Formats: sequence, structure tokens, C-alpha cells
Amino acid sequence: MNERSPRDDARAAAAERYRAVRALSERLAEPLSAEDQGLQSMPDASPTRWHLAHTSWFFEALLLAPLQPGYAVFDPRFHYFFNSYYESLGPRQARPQRGLISRPGSDEIRRYRAHVDAAVQRLVAGGDAATWAAAAPLLELGLNHEQQHQELILTDIKHALAQNAFDPAYRAAPAASASPAAAAPAVAWCDFAGGEVAVGDAGAGFAYDNERPRHAVLLRPYRLASRPVTCGEYLDFIDDGGYARAALWLSDGWTLAGEQRGQAPLYWRREADGSWSEFTLHGRRPLDPAAPVCHVSFYEAAAYAAWAGARLPTEFEWEAAVADLPVAGRWLDADVLRPLPATPGPGLRQAFGDVWEWTRSAYDPYPGFQPLTGAAAEYNGKFMVGQLVLRGGSCASPAGHLRASYRNFFPPAARWQFSGIRLARDA
Amino acid sequence: MNERSPRDDARAAAAERYRAVRALSERLAEPLSAEDQGLQSMPDASPTRWHLAHTSWFFEALLLAPLQPGYAVFDPRFHYFFNSYYESLGPRQARPQRGLISRPGSDEIRRYRAHVDAAVQRLVAGGDAATWAAAAPLLELGLNHEQQHQELILTDIKHALAQNAFDPAYRAAPAASASPAAAAPAVAWCDFAGGEVAVGDAGAGFAYDNERPRHAVLLRPYRLASRPVTCGEYLDFIDDGGYARAALWLSDGWTLAGEQRGQAPLYWRREADGSWSEFTLHGRRPLDPAAPVCHVSFYEAAAYAAWAGARLPTEFEWEAAVADLPVAGRWLDADVLRPLPATPGPGLRQAFGDVWEWTRSAYDPYPGFQPLTGAAAEYNGKFMVGQLVLRGGSCASPAGHLRASYRNFFPPAARWQFSGIRLARDA
Amino acid sequence: MNERSPRDDARAAAAERYRAVRALSERLAEPLSAEDQGLQSMPDASPTRWHLAHTSWFFEALLLAPLQPGYAVFDPRFHYFFNSYYESLGPRQARPQRGLISRPGSDEIRRYRAHVDAAVQRLVAGGDAATWAAAAPLLELGLNHEQQHQELILTDIKHALAQNAFDPAYRAAPAASASPAAAAPAVAWCDFAGGEVAVGDAGAGFAYDNERPRHAVLLRPYRLASRPVTCGEYLDFIDDGGYARAALWLSDGWTLAGEQRGQAPLYWRREADGSWSEFTLHGRRPLDPAAPVCHVSFYEAAAYAAWAGARLPTEFEWEAAVADLPVAGRWLDADVLRPLPATPGPGLRQAFGDVWEWTRSAYDPYPGFQPLTGAAAEYNGKFMVGQLVLRGGSCASPAGHLRASYRNFFPPAARWQFSGIRLARDA
Amino acid sequence: MNERSPRDDARAAAAERYRAVRALSERLAEPLSAEDQGLQSMPDASPTRWHLAHTSWFFEALLLAPLQPGYAVFDPRFHYFFNSYYESLGPRQARPQRGLISRPGSDEIRRYRAHVDAAVQRLVAGGDAATWAAAAPLLELGLNHEQQHQELILTDIKHALAQNAFDPAYRAAPAASASPAAAAPAVAWCDFAGGEVAVGDAGAGFAYDNERPRHAVLLRPYRLASRPVTCGEYLDFIDDGGYARAALWLSDGWTLAGEQRGQAPLYWRREADGSWSEFTLHGRRPLDPAAPVCHVSFYEAAAYAAWAGARLPTEFEWEAAVADLPVAGRWLDADVLRPLPATPGPGLRQAFGDVWEWTRSAYDPYPGFQPLTGAAAEYNGKFMVGQLVLRGGSCASPAGHLRASYRNFFPPAARWQFSGIRLARDA
Repeated sequence: MNERSPRDDARAAAAERYRAVRALSERLAEPLSAEDQGLQSMPDASPTRWHLAHTSWFFEALLLAPLQPGYAVFDPRFHYFFNSYYESLGPRQARPQRGLISRPGSDEIRRYRAHVDAAVQRLVAGGDAATWAAAAPLLELGLNHEQQHQELILTDIKHALAQNAFDPAYRAAPAASASPAAAAPAVAWCDFAGGEVAVGDAGAGFAYDNERPRHAVLLRPYRLASRPVTCGEYLDFIDDGGYARAALWLSDGWTLAGEQRGQAPLYWRREADGSWSEFTLHGRRPLDPAAPVCHVSFYEAAAYAAWAGARLPTEFEWEAAVADLPVAGRWLDADVLRPLPATPGPGLRQAFGDVWEWTRSAYDPYPGFQPLTGAAAEYNGKFMVGQLVLRGGSCASPAGHLRASYRNFFPPAARWQFSGIRLARDA
Repeated sequence: MNERSPRDDARAAAAERYRAVRALSERLAEPLSAEDQGLQSMPDASPTRWHLAHTSWFFEALLLAPLQPGYAVFDPRFHYFFNSYYESLGPRQARPQRGLISRPGSDEIRRYRAHVDAAVQRLVAGGDAATWAAAAPLLELGLNHEQQHQELILTDIKHALAQNAFDPAYRAAPAASASPAAAAPAVAWCDFAGGEVAVGDAGAGFAYDNERPRHAVLLRPYRLASRPVTCGEYLDFIDDGGYARAALWLSDGWTLAGEQRGQAPLYWRREADGSWSEFTLHGRRPLDPAAPVCHVSFYEAAAYAAWAGARLPTEFEWEAAVADLPVAGRWLDADVLRPLPATPGPGLRQAFGDVWEWTRSAYDPYPGFQPLTGAAAEYNGKFMVGQLVLRGGSCASPAGHLRASYRNFFPPAARWQFSGIRLARDA
Repeated sequence: MNERSPRDDARAAAAERYRAVRALSERLAEPLSAEDQGLQSMPDASPTRWHLAHTSWFFEALLLAPLQPGYAVFDPRFHYFFNSYYESLGPRQARPQRGLISRPGSDEIRRYRAHVDAAVQRLVAGGDAATWAAAAPLLELGLNHEQQHQELILTDIKHALAQNAFDPAYRAAPAASASPAAAAPAVAWCDFAGGEVAVGDAGAGFAYDNERPRHAVLLRPYRLASRPVTCGEYLDFIDDGGYARAALWLSDGWTLAGEQRGQAPLYWRREADGSWSEFTLHGRRPLDPAAPVCHVSFYEAAAYAAWAGARLPTEFEWEAAVADLPVAGRWLDADVLRPLPATPGPGLRQAFGDVWEWTRSAYDPYPGFQPLTGAAAEYNGKFMVGQLVLRGGSCASPAGHLRASYRNFFPPAARWQFSGIRLARDA
Repeated sequence: MNERSPRDDARAAAAERYRAVRALSERLAEPLSAEDQGLQSMPDASPTRWHLAHTSWFFEALLLAPLQPGYAVFDPRFHYFFNSYYESLGPRQARPQRGLISRPGSDEIRRYRAHVDAAVQRLVAGGDAATWAAAAPLLELGLNHEQQHQELILTDIKHALAQNAFDPAYRAAPAASASPAAAAPAVAWCDFAGGEVAVGDAGAGFAYDNERPRHAVLLRPYRLASRPVTCGEYLDFIDDGGYARAALWLSDGWTLAGEQRGQAPLYWRREADGSWSEFTLHGRRPLDPAAPVCHVSFYEAAAYAAWAGARLPTEFEWEAAVADLPVAGRWLDADVLRPLPATPGPGLRQAFGDVWEWTRSAYDPYPGFQPLTGAAAEYNGKFMVGQLVLRGGSCASPAGHLRASYRNFFPPAARWQFSGIRLARDA
């Protein structure tokens, strides 16, 4: 028989998806010089070339080394340089020192990627059935992992370029995007009945371990705002003295010092003429009052919500509300790498794009949570304390990476992600 | 008629309870010299005399000033010195500098307490009906507040005395307690069916705002250990290399540095002969392997649980499990100010005494949470991020202060409280 | 024969001098409560009761233990608590934790002092000739050491009380001192020929090892201001933008951050009405423009000198200039514990009192410097880097402690001493 | 007449010297990738490409902008990026953030250098007499400045590459240098009579302002070691417990913590077999016991000297001792970029090469010191506190940059320079 088996189709699809995801990472690095790609502007952020190498190491260490017979490691030293946080995989470059890795340089890292790509493709094409069965989930994990780093490539380089006093752009904005958009549609309140709802991975596709097990939770009736809070609305909060009114703030947020405290979202600046500008991946631009506010901390999000007489949704309220929505949004694939105003229309808008939405839920394990096995056990579970859940996705999230049950998480003071605010209220 | 009205009875009971609570604070200070009472050994801990003054200020600022007509403030400067964290009540001594308040000294603070006591008693005895209606809940809040500080007086002075190289005792141990107890009873696993259970303040008595509203949650079937983990069991964890096995640890706990990291619970020391000792409020003593381990961080608790093939309970599993137990335990009123071994018997033991039990629940607001009004709004709500819930109570908690719905909370690295471990498992 | 020998006279004089010096320390502690005596407001400053104990320990460890046969140590734990920095004498309480020593308390330290006093007097009265020969220089060292700590008792408690938001006084000012003095006399310039001059201890009385050996240095002709810079003159510097003009400042001073940077001398405050006040040991007072400025760092002193078109003197210019002056000034013995305006008259004024004078000389060893032997070797020599020499003496220096060759030294950022400015110029 | 004037000769010589010095900087960058050139491994060290740009900016800002009519600034933003510490020349990139300048990159900095070079050569060739008179000393200052940065390029990249876990070499060592040299010649003591000696710039060539004015000092008779201390000798100090004997150390050195404290010179490592290795610009190599020890702090140098029963020389003893020696040594121009053993022979060896020699002299101004005028006033004077003088020169100092009166200076804890030890004794 000459027909392709479904299994062959699965392999071919995996090979193609692998190529596409890997190619996007490289495309993201293209606008950046070798010098740009080495920048590390804070311990939480990593150089572009480190991301390019680390995502390759992830395939090498978790997929190729255990499953590809005779796989030749590209350079054993890379195991030290590009392991991020996997204690079970040995010692590694300290995170705040990733910017000190000048060797290997960009060229060698490009060769490293090619070496890994070839080996992965060989494994996908030629692994026997048992190997493929073991490899397929790790391959998918590696691709989702790389997609997370694609967003980080953008948020980290944005932070790095923002340290340059002259506001260099990562990429020029498309000409059409130059003028600020029209006003944002007025916010509407969408009602949800609550009750017993199921949350977590329903098993239809890839999901991280932290989305499992699917389980039921009880919700009271609630309402969510139809769209995220805009920059213009946030300016009202600033102008109303929001940053100086302790009663609006959580204690930890109020006592933050210096740059973390802020007097406005990260990257905003009040100009000499009293107007506000914002540093973006397209350089510094006048603030667009209709666009969703982003680069706010959880503390800022919660203080804004208190000021607005509302609150932040829990992660389950959020998930239940979007359960029936299509996972569609304005993502990384778009030309414009910043949040844009909502389009008018009924129901929840922009749930899956433009900005990650801080929730009022600490990042706790789901009841019955079991981490993945092997090194992948360290992927999510060990971070389940001191962080808050964000839901949705952002203008820097790649297409195909998001879903209703996705749990992003960051510490409450983090501001360098595209993190925004959607308001909630008790019904 | 000669009969006392029920209202008079309520006032008389309040007056008596006030006298008793306030007297206990002073009794706790008695073993301490003026020098001891001024110690502040870390920013999180406060001097004894600050606690004595701050609890009085609380009555003055929240009860007497708003409700007692013509109340004469004892010294307006105390408003600055002894406000803890109430932003709405004005500027105050920075927390890490509380040890720098030498004036007022202990004598003047004693007079301050007497002044406040007299005024409160006048208010209780003589306030008109409307005043009493407004005062009664604030009085009760103030008494519960003072009880919390009674525990802090002990945990803070324990930390301070532990900095003294020669292990001075807060108070001599009763002679009878000198010899270590018998072995702890073997741990048993108590099963609970889960399902939909109600948690939070049921309205039968005083509760903090953070215990409200009572609401239903869904639990899966689970099991709890019959008693807290003992020092002997924890030593097995140490001896098995528990502190050196990254796979057991949450990432934030693993990367803690220096003293916070530890290699054993706070106050433990390995002696030259290889044995272990523990600094207690009765001075340094040989470790009692049968007593509950305490002074562990959330990170240590979670790592121990992972090592033991178990997990920590959620706060709701804990609350549902004790719902029908009497609130009884070995508290501050006992002679021995340290955890003692469990007594044998069926069911959950030591739920309400000896050690606070870390849960696997972040300190999030309950659905529909509303803070108290006025200055008391800052009592609990503004701390609802970055902390973990502890349940139960400790050997330093005063009698009458605890209940099933009580939510204590501390940051995950905190170790100076009497914090211990109870294991849980999925059924 | 009934005559006293000269040796008896020497012993009697030593005994009397010992009594007097020790009594002064206790007199200095008298205005302070037990609470005050425990304050440590920064790592560089020590609690009063620590000073009282440490100076006793010094006699115990360096004099009594080695030389008094059968001396019974008062409490061996004090060796740990009250050793300051003598590595050769074993481990000790870390300096920033001196405020955490609550036991022993003030009463026990008083008994410690009495115990040491009695033993020293026995040694002075009864030691044989060889013992006395060995003891006499150590006794003298111990008394000079205690005098240094007398000044520190005052400067340290001043810093500690200044942390109290309500400006408590160490001691009330004498009534007569209430009104600011008359204007300071105009500054005159005193000329000195320079050439080869001898500096250092001439051997006439007690001197520290750091003043030896006496040696010749070459000086160019120079001029010194007749009196220290006044607060009024320093205000002109402030008003002229002195703190904002980088060209006046040494780089390390310019880049100091926060409190160390300052915008005025330590303890100065600009009041709401634009006037200036100063915290003193007598509480907060209006600034006296005629009094010498003090509590300035070396950086401030050097910046002021640059602004004034002058420079700071070297330590040798200073010493040569005062070689023929009587060692007289307004010291600790005075009623008023703050610098007072100069009295009119010819020549250098206030060289030995009111304020220590920063010199432009790093604290380097003299050529041929030999530290004392034994534990006393650590007294001075090991600090000979990173510090600047101050000459003269202050209103907090005890009478009989000063001399022309005296080398005081502090790091350049130190401001809590009574440190001021005398200008110099090339002739 | 056709003859060249002496002035023409001076200009031609300056042009040629300029070409040669500038070319050497670029040659030093050649072995480094764009990635390497961006590394900043600590606040005190700067990226290679920053050095290349800053030295060009120095000519632009101090020479071309004021003196070249119509000079077109290459890019005004560079004034911000590449000003090092000149407050009078405006705001600038914070020193610890120099590694965050990715734009301009290496290519653009190369163009910047060419732009400046062309303009300087035009100025040298075509400036009128008055311009040339003003320009010549600034040109010479700029060239000496660039030479200082040539040494820093090497010491900074050495520090940066040392952070790489796999010891990459800056440049391969010449084959001939592979084997350790023969034993160092035994140390001899050279006697000097002291007395009144003249020190400082004698006016024969270029000198910095900090070497002026020449003046007389008095020295006692003294002896200097014929060669620097070797690694082998320093190992004896280590093996004798030198790092654990407080009595040898200055207090500030003893209390240094962590990496600054060290247990051996910077870059040394004890291997698993007990031998010692050293990271060099040629990668990691076995320690050469005959070579001068380097990368020691002033504290280590002084402790070693105390251990050896000697002391460090003062800067004047050093200068007087070399006054009659030729300024010759093994410098940057050599193939081997590390100190080599002394060659046998009479008198002082290696005074001007291999390692800078810590002196026991704080970096104080000379009597009558006057800084240069204009922006150059900030070159040296504002650093005259908190630093120690080093004399001589190192294997990373360029030829033609050194002289007997040269005063190098670093803070006492600095170890990343090629800093070594020469012993002194009183005669």
C-alpha cells in the first residue's frame, strides 16, 4: 500500500510545526545586532542569544539526549551555559550572569540551533514507534517552551533597549500604525452566573501540568468588564492621585521602593510639555489613551481596581467566562508589537491578546496536581509560591500557544511583561 | 427592680475580659528587665515595650478617640511611636527602628496602659447605648489584637534572646518538665470525604474580616495525619540529606541564602558531640524527638512533606477536618512554653495548640471579602499577597483566641513563629 | 622614716587619676535611663552601657588578667560581649549587634565596674615594683582609652537620641546659654614659615604609638585661619549651591547616596519658616551662626574649603602651628555640650576644643612606626588605611586627654563626631 | 628654504605618535569578537568597545570641540554614552551600565574612531600656531589617557573572560612560553641612604598634574628588595596560614567579606590534585612559582609584608630608589601578557614592568598641587582620597607610558589590576 498512515501524518505535522516554531525564534532575532543580542538588563531578563541557545538546549537535554540513540552533543559546555533552572540536570551559569557569556557567540549559537534542528528532524522522521511515542509529548513541550521564550525575547529586549537613553526601536512600526487609534469602546459589564464550573485542561490538546487536573470549583455570580482598562483610564487614576493614596494599595506594593514603586506604568514618561509618552518596541511614542494599559504590576492592577470600585477577577472567574470564546487575538504575528484598542462588539473583547490579565489568584497547585516526570518535573511546580496567575495572552504571545486554561504566572512586582488589567465585580 | 439587665451583664463581662486580657500582657513582660524589653533583633520583630504600648494605642486610636467624649490623649507623640501600619492614621516610626524608641521608657508605658485602661473601663461602664453598640465590636477587636501581640511578645523576645551568645532563658522551665517526654504516638491517617463544605466564620462569636464571608468550597477526598511532624521525624529528613536535595524544594526556598536558608529549623544547633539542642524560652535544651517540630519555614514544611511522600493540607481541608473538634489545646496559659508531644488517642490531635500548621494555601481574599470599615480596614486585607495561611494555634497562643476558621498568615520564609507541619494526602 | 617616696606619690597620683577618670564615665551616663543606655542607632555607634562595660573590660583584659596575681574575672562571658576589636583576645559580639546585649543590664555592669575598680586600686596600691613598672603604662593607656570612650558616649547617644522624632535632650542646657552668642570674630590668617619641623610625640607625657616616632618633615610656607569655619559661613556655602556644584567635591563625596550625602551638616534641619535648627545634646536649637560648624564629613570640609578658595591643612602644618600654644580649650567639662563661638584675640583660636579639625592627611604610619606590644598592638596600627587624620579636640573631649601631636582618625564620610573645618592656604 | 622647521618636526612626530597609539588600541581589540567587546563583568570594569569609544570621545570633547574650528561632532549622543566621569561635561551613562550600550555597536565605534582620527590629524597638520600651542599638551594628555585605557582593556577583558566557566584565552600564548621559567633569583636587599630627596615631575617630558609640583621630602635610610615577591613565596604565606592570622592584617582587609576577601590572589585556583593554577590572558595555566605574584589587593600586599617581617615602601622611597634607573621593562608590547620571572643581575629588577607595586602611601595631593584647567581638572585631583599609590608599571602597560614619578592609584581592595608586592625595610 502506498497510503500514508495517520502516524506518518502526525510526524509530518510535527516536523512542520517544529520548523515553523523554530524559524519564528530566529526571525525575532533578525532585527538585532550581535551587540543587542548580548544584553542582559536585569537578573530576570536574559540575552536574546541565550534564549536562542537555551531553547535548543531544552530539546537536546530533554529530548535528544535521552531518546536519540547515538546523539552527539554539540558542545558539552553548553549544558552549563544554557540550562536555565533544572537542578536535576546539573550546575549552570547563574541567572544574573547570563549576559557574561560572550563565547559561544551568535554565530556558534546559530550552528548549535542547526545541529539540534537536524537531530530533531531525524528523530521525528526516523525514530521507531516506541521512541516516537516517548518523543512526541516532549517535542510538544519543547515547542511550547520555545514559544514562551519567544515572548520573553521580546519583553527582555524591550527592557534592555529601554535602558538606552535614546530610545532605539527593536523594529520600525508599520507606517499605517503611526497615528493613534480612535477612542476605545465604552466598557460594558458581562454577567456570569457562577455556580459549579469545571476548570483546567479538558484534554483536547497540549496543556502544561499546572493546568491539571481538571476539577470543579464553586463561583458566586460575577461580572467582568468587556475589555481591559485603557491607558486613558489609567491616566485618570494617576491624575486622581492614585499612587499617593495608601488606602488603595496592598501593603507590599505601597512599601516598594525606587524604580519598582514607580509613579506610572513601566516605560511611561511625562514629557516636558506635560504629555505622556511610552517606550515601545517601535521606539518612544505618544501614549495612546485608547489602548490597553500594560506593564503594570499586580500591585498597580489591584490598586487601580480598588480606585475604580471594582476588583480583579479570580483565575477561575476568568476561565469560566472565556470557556466558550474562540481563542483568537492580536498576537506576536501582527505587525504592531504593542497593544491596540479594542474593537467594538458584544461580549468579552481581547481576552486572548494584547495584554496578559492579572488575576486575584495566587499561583497555587490544583487539587491533585502532579508534576511531569523526569527533568520536566521542574518546569512549573517548583514555582508555585509567591506568584500571581495571569490569564489570556499578549501582543507578544505567538499564535497557537494560548488556551482558556493557560496559567501564566509572575511575582506581584513584575512589570516588564505585557501585563494589564481587566476589572471584575460581584454580581 | 434590682435585676441586672442582660446589657449590664454584657458590659460587666466585657470589663472583666478586658481586665484579664490586659493583665496577661503585663504578666508576660514581668520576667523581662527594662533592657530586655527594648530589644529589637530584626525588622519583623518588635520590642516588648513597644507591644505593650502599641496595644494600648490601638484602644486609644480606634476606640477611645472616636467614641469617648472628651477623652484626653495621654501623649500625642505616642501616636507617632506606636502606630504600627495604619496609613490612614498618619506617619509613624519606621518598623525597623522600633528598637530606637527609648523615650518613653517602661515606666511611662506602664502609666500609659493604666491611663488607657481607666478610660476604657469608664467607656464600658458609662457609655450610652449608642456608644456601647459602636464600642463593643471595637473593644472585642482590640482584645483579639492584644492577644495576637501576646504571642508576638513571646516569639519576638525568643528571637532577641537567641541572639545572646549565652542562651538566656525568658523564664525557667518548671522542674517537672525537665526530662524529655515519652515517645510520640505513631502517626495515623484520618480520612475525610471532602465534597462541598462550608468554610469561614459561622457567626457564633468574634471573627476577623478575613474569615468572611462563610462560603462553600469543593474538596476531593483527603487524609490528614493525626498529629504534627515531630522533631525526631524531621531529624530523619535532615539525616537523609533533605536540605541538599533540590528536587524536594520549591525554587524560592532552594535559592534562599545565608541564615534564611538554614540547615535545620531555626534555634536548632548541632553540638560538638553530634547531638542536637534547641533554644527555647526556657533556655537551650536537648532536642525532644517526640515533640512537634517548630520554627520551620513554609519552604521547609513543603520540602519535608515532599520527602515524606505527602503534601501540606489546604486551609480548607484543615478547616473542614476540625469543624467538629473542640477548640482545646496547650496554649500560652501552660507552664511550659514550648510544644510538647502529642497524647495518644483517636482522631486529630493537637490541632489547636503546640504549633501553627503551614497550609498549602496562599492568603487570598475569600469571595466577597469586605474589609472592616474605618482604620480597621487596614487590619487584614492589605496583607493579602505573598503570604501563606497557617491554621490552628500554638503553645504561645492565648486561650480563648482560637477557632476553626482562624486564618493566621506569614511570608513563606518566616521561621520565628511556632510554625510546624501536619501532613496531608489525597485519599 | 615617714616620708613618702616619689614612687608612692606616683602610685597615689595614678590612683587618684584613675578614680577621677572612671567617675566621669559614670557621670556621663547619669542623665540616661536604662532604656537610653541600650540604644545602638548605627553599626559605628555603641550603647552607653556597652561603653561602660568595654572600658572596664579593657582594664581587666590588658591589665588585671596578665598582671594581677589571682585576679578573679568578674564573669567570663563579658570577655565575649565587651571585647571590641581585639582579634588576639578571641571571638566577640559583632559590632552592629552590640545593641542586642540586654544581659548583663545596667545594674550588673555597674557591679562590673566596681569589681574592676577595686582590683585596679589593689594593683596600684599593692603591686610589687616589677608589677607596677609593667602596670603603669597599661594603666595610663586604659585611662586614655576610657577618655576616648567618654567622647564616644556623647557622640553615640547624640546620634541615638537624634533618631527620636521628638528631639529629646541628653541634658538640659544651662539657662545662661540659651541665647545665641555674639558674632564670631572675623577670620584672620596666621602665617607660618614651614621648613624642616619636628612632629610627633616629644616624650614629655603619654602618647599613643601612632604619634611615634618623632620625626622631621619639610613644609612649605603656609597660612592657617585664626578660627574654625562658623555655621554662618557654612550657610553661605549652602546658599551658594555648594552641595550642587560637582567641581567643589571629591568624587567619592559627590557620589555618596542618601543620608550620607546630605544637603547640610548632620543634625541640621531647615524649618518650615526657612530658618535652620540643629539637634544638640541639649535638644533642638536655632542654629548659632557664630559657632563653629560641626558634624561635617571630610568631603564636606574639603568642598567647603574649595568653595572658599582655600584648602584643608595637612596634619603636619596643623601640628607645627600649635606647637607653642597651650593645650587649652572648651571641653567636655564645660556645662555647654556644643561648640561655642571663638573669643576674640590674636593667633590661632580654638585649636584644642569645640571641634575636631579635618586635615588633608590620610592616616598613614609614621616612618619607623612600631605598634605597641601584646594585645595593645591592635590599638591603632591596624586602622591605618582609608581614614583621614583629625587634629585638635572637641567640646566632647575630656580635659587632660589632648596634646599637639594627637592624631584622631575617622573615615571620610563620618559625620557623627564633632568634626569641623579650619582653612589653610599656601603662603 | 626647503628645510622643515623644528615645529614641523614636532607636528610630524605628534601625528606619528598619535597614529601609533591609536593603532595599538585597535590591535588590542582584534582578538575579541563583537560579543566579547560588550562584556562588563563588574562596575569597575568597562566593555572593550566602550574603551575604544571613550578614548575617542576624550579627543573630541577636550581637543577637537574646543580647538578645531567647525569640527562636526560625529554623533551628539556619544557625548552621553562615552563621557566617563567629567561632571563639567554633562550627564552620562552610569558606570555600572556601560555594558548596556549595544547601540552604537562595534562597527559604528570603528567609524567614530576614524572620524576622530581624521579630525585630529587635520588639526595637527593644519592648526595655526596658537591652536597648535593649545592643542599639543591636550593631544599628549589624550594619548597618555588612551594608553591608560589600553591597560584597562586588558585587565577588564581578563576579568570578564574569567567569569566564563571554561577559561577562554584572550590570545593564545606564544609556543615558546609554554614551559614555566627557571627559578627566580634570590632576593637581595638594596640600601638607600634617604635624607632630603626631590620627588615628582622634573619637567623633562609629559607628566600628570598629580606628579607636581616637584618637591623635597625627608627619608630615613631604607632598603628595598631587589625584585617583586614571587608566586612561590606567596604560596609559602598561604601555606603558613597567612589568610587566617588576623595579626598580619589591616582591619579593613580582615573584615572584607566574600569574593573580595579571597583565600588567594584573584584568578588563582587550587585544583583537585592540590596544585595551583592561574587564569591568564592566555587561559588557565599552572602557577609559575618564579613569576611575580600579581592580582593582590593592598591588604594582601601589606599582610604578606608583615608576615615576611618587612613592610611596603612609601611612594617616595620607591621613587628615590629608581631615580637613576632606565625606564625599561617587559610591557604590553611583549608577546607574553603575564608577569615573568626576574632576570638575575645587580640592583633593583623589574621596577618598570611585570607588576604595579603597591606602596604604603595614601594618594594625597602633593604640597602646592594644582589640577589642570578646564575639564581636565577632573582627571586626577578629585580621586585623591581613599586610594593607595602604586608605582612602576606592569606587563599590560604600554611602552613609553611610564616614568619614575608616575603615580598610579587604586582603592585598597582592588585586585583586577596587575598589582604586586615589593618589600621594604628600615635600614
